[in-house]
Amino acid sequence: MTEMMSPDQLEAALRAVGAARYHDKHPFQVRLNAGDLNRDQVRAWALNRYYYQSRIPLKDAALLARLEDPALRRAWRQRIVDHDGETEGDGGIERWLRLTDALGFARDYVIAAHHILPGTRYAVDAYVHFVRERSLLEAVASSLTEMFSPGAIKNRVAGMLANYDFVSKEALAYFDKRLTQAPRDADFALDYVKREARRPEQQQAVIAALTFKCDTLWAQLDALHHAYVEPGHIPPGAWQP
Amino acid sequence: MTEMMSPDQLEAALRAVGAARYHDKHPFQVRLNAGDLNRDQVRAWALNRYYYQSRIPLKDAALLARLEDPALRRAWRQRIVDHDGETEGDGGIERWLRLTDALGFARDYVIAAHHILPGTRYAVDAYVHFVRERSLLEAVASSLTEMFSPGAIKNRVAGMLANYDFVSKEALAYFDKRLTQAPRDADFALDYVKREARRPEQQQAVIAALTFKCDTLWAQLDALHHAYVEPGHIPPGAWQP
Repeated sequence: MTEMMSPDQLEAALRAVGAARYHDKHPFQVRLNAGDLNRDQVRAWALNRYYYQSRIPLKDAALLARLEDPALRRAWRQRIVDHDGETEGDGGIERWLRLTDALGFARDYVIAAHHILPGTRYAVDAYVHFVRERSLLEAVASSLTEMFSPGAIKNRVAGMLANYDFVSKEALAYFDKRLTQAPRDADFALDYVKREARRPEQQQAVIAALTFKCDTLWAQLDALHHAYVEPGHIPPGAWQP
Repeated sequence: MTEMMSPDQLEAALRAVGAARYHDKHPFQVRLNAGDLNRDQVRAWALNRYYYQSRIPLKDAALLARLEDPALRRAWRQRIVDHDGETEGDGGIERWLRLTDALGFARDYVIAAHHILPGTRYAVDAYVHFVRERSLLEAVASSLTEMFSPGAIKNRVAGMLANYDFVSKEALAYFDKRLTQAPRDADFALDYVKREARRPEQQQAVIAALTFKCDTLWAQLDALHHAYVEPGHIPPGAWQP
């Protein structure tokens, strides 16, 4: 029988999941930050991760559609604004496309996502389905990877700027914005799960949801590593450098 | 503008998808058949593929739930009988568990599927979601990988029996049954799509559905290959040999 944790114990358990499983420890991410990838490998990362970025507002809209409280909806709605922008040419998805622009991809090619890795697509879609199908508490908890992203972003941006002459500060503008957006979102979601997980099994479901989300990020990098770092393993139909 | 194909041209296009993308050409499958995997790698394959087997009747039930015609339902229902059996201890899932038994896994461990690769889970779940969410025609078409399985199964069984002293004919009983079940199922589904795809875009959707399904099988082997053939890449939480 699992014991009830205090809210702070729950937070500590969530931070332990991040320490063990957040994708900043994935070999592909370590190589990306250290400058050990070539331009085509960085291109593959940006191309595939666009699909993740593009699904985030759909995930957030699916969650928004289940929030009964206008105050919660107002808070959650900001995530969609951040990704989609106030006007054409604004927002996180647009900023990601500036990165793929800088890496030489045509926008239509990136947006169509026909040639991303199947492993990317399945991992990202698994996240969207999780948010649609699980409890609201688990859906909110699955967003808690934002707790760990500011530190990872700082390392990533510093590493990429230091190590890749084909990546500029402007091309990485997406991450600058996330440094302020992610902590605000993470604080909100963390307060929510600490308050709303009122039974031991709910607390365990919150931890499992964050673990699941870490796995979806990790699996995206597994797919990239297998296809574009190990030679000869690009699956049929995926982008060929 | 895509032109309408004759039913036989559609069949030829579907066979071309299999020739290019069916997973018998995946490096992991080639190694499995050739005896180039060690026992732990074969164990990883059997453990992970159990999850695929376990989801197939759920996928078929989701499809059955959308078939309006009793005659079609009677035909499709047989797939569920084949996997679940007439009685306890019968059926394809049970036969797969005899393989994991023979490879030294506890049944509870296999059935819980807590330690399969996330990449396996996402690929399999992607297939189940596809069948639930797409048109009936696409759902039926996604089963057409059965067209290519008898040849692949013959090679796999012969290769595994010749090359692995830890695999017996009894442990591979699953595949014996599939040699008669798969062609019957494939003939039914192929007749269905040749008859029901009445517009060029429906024919293209049928081809895309089979391509999608091939990708889900390929991605499962990508995940296995990355985790258990390349050293040092087992993701957090997955089975450790």
